[in-house]
Amino acid sequence: MDEIFEIKDKDLMGRIGLLHTRSMKIETPLFFPVIHPIRNLREISVEDIKKIGFNTLITNAYLVKKFYGEKIFETGLKKILGFEGVLMTDSGAYQIMQYGDIDVSNREIVEYQEKMDQDIAVILDIPTRSDVSYEEAERSVEETFKRAYEVLDIINKSEKLWVLPIQGGGYKDLVYKSAVKSLELPGYKIYGIGSPVTFLENYEYDKILENIFIVKKILPPDKPVHLFGAGHPMIIPFIVASGVDMFDSASYILYARENRYVTEYGTERLEDLEYFPCSCPVCSRYTPKELMEMSREERTRLLAIHNLYMIYKELKRVKTALKEGRLWELLIERSHSHPRLRSVIKIFIREKDFIEKYSPFSKGRRGLFITEYESLYRPNIQRSKNRNFEVLSYKIIKKICEEIIFIPADLRYKPFSSSPVLKNVFSQIDIRKISCTYYYTPVLGILSISIEEAYPYSQTEIAREVIEDPRVIEVLKKELVEVLDNLRRIREDLNIVMYFVKELDWSLKLYENLSKDLEKINIKTIVL
Amino acid sequence: MDEIFEIKDKDLMGRIGLLHTRSMKIETPLFFPVIHPIRNLREISVEDIKKIGFNTLITNAYLVKKFYGEKIFETGLKKILGFEGVLMTDSGAYQIMQYGDIDVSNREIVEYQEKMDQDIAVILDIPTRSDVSYEEAERSVEETFKRAYEVLDIINKSEKLWVLPIQGGGYKDLVYKSAVKSLELPGYKIYGIGSPVTFLENYEYDKILENIFIVKKILPPDKPVHLFGAGHPMIIPFIVASGVDMFDSASYILYARENRYVTEYGTERLEDLEYFPCSCPVCSRYTPKELMEMSREERTRLLAIHNLYMIYKELKRVKTALKEGRLWELLIERSHSHPRLRSVIKIFIREKDFIEKYSPFSKGRRGLFITEYESLYRPNIQRSKNRNFEVLSYKIIKKICEEIIFIPADLRYKPFSSSPVLKNVFSQIDIRKISCTYYYTPVLGILSISIEEAYPYSQTEIAREVIEDPRVIEVLKKELVEVLDNLRRIREDLNIVMYFVKELDWSLKLYENLSKDLEKINIKTIVL
Repeated sequence: MDEIFEIKDKDLMGRIGLLHTRSMKIETPLFFPVIHPIRNLREISVEDIKKIGFNTLITNAYLVKKFYGEKIFETGLKKILGFEGVLMTDSGAYQIMQYGDIDVSNREIVEYQEKMDQDIAVILDIPTRSDVSYEEAERSVEETFKRAYEVLDIINKSEKLWVLPIQGGGYKDLVYKSAVKSLELPGYKIYGIGSPVTFLENYEYDKILENIFIVKKILPPDKPVHLFGAGHPMIIPFIVASGVDMFDSASYILYARENRYVTEYGTERLEDLEYFPCSCPVCSRYTPKELMEMSREERTRLLAIHNLYMIYKELKRVKTALKEGRLWELLIERSHSHPRLRSVIKIFIREKDFIEKYSPFSKGRRGLFITEYESLYRPNIQRSKNRNFEVLSYKIIKKICEEIIFIPADLRYKPFSSSPVLKNVFSQIDIRKISCTYYYTPVLGILSISIEEAYPYSQTEIAREVIEDPRVIEVLKKELVEVLDNLRRIREDLNIVMYFVKELDWSLKLYENLSKDLEKINIKTIVL
Repeated sequence: MDEIFEIKDKDLMGRIGLLHTRSMKIETPLFFPVIHPIRNLREISVEDIKKIGFNTLITNAYLVKKFYGEKIFETGLKKILGFEGVLMTDSGAYQIMQYGDIDVSNREIVEYQEKMDQDIAVILDIPTRSDVSYEEAERSVEETFKRAYEVLDIINKSEKLWVLPIQGGGYKDLVYKSAVKSLELPGYKIYGIGSPVTFLENYEYDKILENIFIVKKILPPDKPVHLFGAGHPMIIPFIVASGVDMFDSASYILYARENRYVTEYGTERLEDLEYFPCSCPVCSRYTPKELMEMSREERTRLLAIHNLYMIYKELKRVKTALKEGRLWELLIERSHSHPRLRSVIKIFIREKDFIEKYSPFSKGRRGLFITEYESLYRPNIQRSKNRNFEVLSYKIIKKICEEIIFIPADLRYKPFSSSPVLKNVFSQIDIRKISCTYYYTPVLGILSISIEEAYPYSQTEIAREVIEDPRVIEVLKKELVEVLDNLRRIREDLNIVMYFVKELDWSLKLYENLSKDLEKINIKTIVL
């Protein structure tokens, strides 16, 4: 049983998948709410969690062993929990982080977990804490691998999905080494990325994303990836878009205990709120004031339920965007909810070539919404630019075109050719040359006029502010120089004519900036 | 009873108010769901609407008259509806738009409404349709005013809140004239802005906002303003931030009838959805597929309930942001959900001086989040810049400072002075001159180093991408030249020293751009 993960849909590096577990097939991306195995120590019931929509839980095998011992094998943990969905167990790594060490060995806890009735399990890894020296971090990576090897005999014949934790924390080269090493252990079905708590606490989202990208570049793309300890709705779009398929967190209840209310844009203190900016059943029924007046116990429960609803909603939001091919739009929108999330967009831009390989250039999805500068670098725009240039080069190499004409596209009109300011230009172009006529335009670069009504051009909406952004014109200028230089190199004697239109500000600006360069490489320019 | 509206809180032009109606006081901003007065013709019950959280309804007095006639005065419409909240009636304007004219006069329907038990009422105005000529639009404005005058005897002694509709549609000068004229009719307690349906249908949000600003600039700021026919959650943040206190719409049910599902970022077709990106009771309980399989009746009802939950949630979201002084942040974030909403931000920037007068510079609120270029123009940033310059000028005029030292602020550190790259600079500055030492910095402009730990500077978070934006540096350059020029003009012999720090890219770029200008006006520059 190696085919435990089917990928159903993709956008950016994110995917919707189907994870085959021993008890059921379940759609990813998935969130696993952390719960305490003992009923009396839970502020929120399994029933509450199921009612929200989650069919996933994670609990701690170390605590299960401590409280239930061997008895658990008779009854089964799922029965005790009253839960039939996908159950995951962590080993005790969190306790190691808290108390330094625990009174159970890796082999013991792995054997114990193997006998349990859960679906997904984790070895007793040594999480890299964020405050440690390089040497200590290195030791945590090495010890984790030693332990992963040590139980390979159990893992290899297990029907469960065992998670191999990749550690390294704040040391990128260790994260890299850890990921490379993980390839030697094929018995593990899921890769887990450790995410030091302080990264989230200090809003260092970029560090979390950097680690994810390091790991994703090494791991086989068809393997599911789990992110440990991530559960704030703010980062869900970003981790899913970078290829995380599963994640777990107790923050929903930890926040609730401190009267903290989670939203897709941040964390609020209950006492600061006059309204609940949410429509979940808790927020539709109560006001912040009413919650404040409740018993601590009931308030914690209700806040935890809200926090989980928010996570569940955000997952559905991300999956909707992914299905529509609008994950990029969602990232841009959400990145404006916190300055630190803006840096995360930079990582996506830096990794654009890598993301491009993952991203499908699919048809029939929604048109692109371009609301700002960064969208120049979104993978599908990049890809269509590359493709357009390839086709153009082919036409010239194959001598299909003896002359190439470039005209500005007027993005305010759809199709661009319906723009009144282009009438004059079109009247000057010999209809027989139309197949060798190209648009040049901010954001989209160059494209054959024959494809302007094809996807994604026909449905793309670009904010006027982006077209006018000087950085966008600068990029277009550079791209044009590169394209024209290349065309010249392919065929020195090629006729190239470039039209500029005064009524289009950006086209005129371009002319002022380019005319000398164009003259040098013998390109005819016409300003109308 | 003239004090019918108390303003409790403000941010940008938006406010949270208390509207005194004859039956109760109610907090604004308010949404009025449109319902049909006849139970059998409603797909959603009054109970459903109340349960969502709305304590407001609007229905059509013309239809009430047609169906119930004089009988309504015995029972009362509220009793028939089973509703005790704030009830508003429209007159029949919508029917005029649909059918050209109706079989009741303005005076008749106003008299009828006056005898009813609702709280807010509207005269029989002539809405300006969006497809009409200037002459026809002008006629609709004039006829509306004629009718407003005609019933002034009733309005003036009414206990109800009568709405005076301001028309003009797509003709800005008519909207302006209409607003000016409305000042002559003080009996009306609420001003209503007409919003042609096509503006919303064609995503022409900027036209709606332009009309609101035209009207708000003329009306007394303490009067409540109603926007007719607006109810998409996408535009709620923008209309509230421009000072709309009330709005109504039937779109929630019209959309539902067409299987359309409303979100804060757009409108989805139910059949395109695989998940509901929402946590309202409907979306928590059902999947899109389940809704598709229901009877048309039940599906319409549930979609209408979801659509209303979304509107209610968005109102609470906007009010939360307003209370926190983060309405601007919300507008920026939401403007990235649709290219057309980006143009709306441009209107807010264009109107920044006007907004500034409305916006309180309050303390104790949340720090500012600056995630992009446009935030340079947000009113409180503008205001603090102006204030800082005033204080600096005062110090020079009063000869409190014989020398002014400018040093770059390192926005990556808080306080800025804790930055290691500034150590060198501070070591060169005589401690006695510290009260005449100023930071200069992207986004925030110039500020005395003594106030860097005060609000809003200490809590402000600026995305690194904004600091590096060439447009931001360009603005800082212009502002500095202006400030320095002015200082020179105030005192020709003033010593001005300006430090630049190589480790801060933007500071060095500024030096390269400015050094010649500075030399000209005799300013000493030191690069460290």
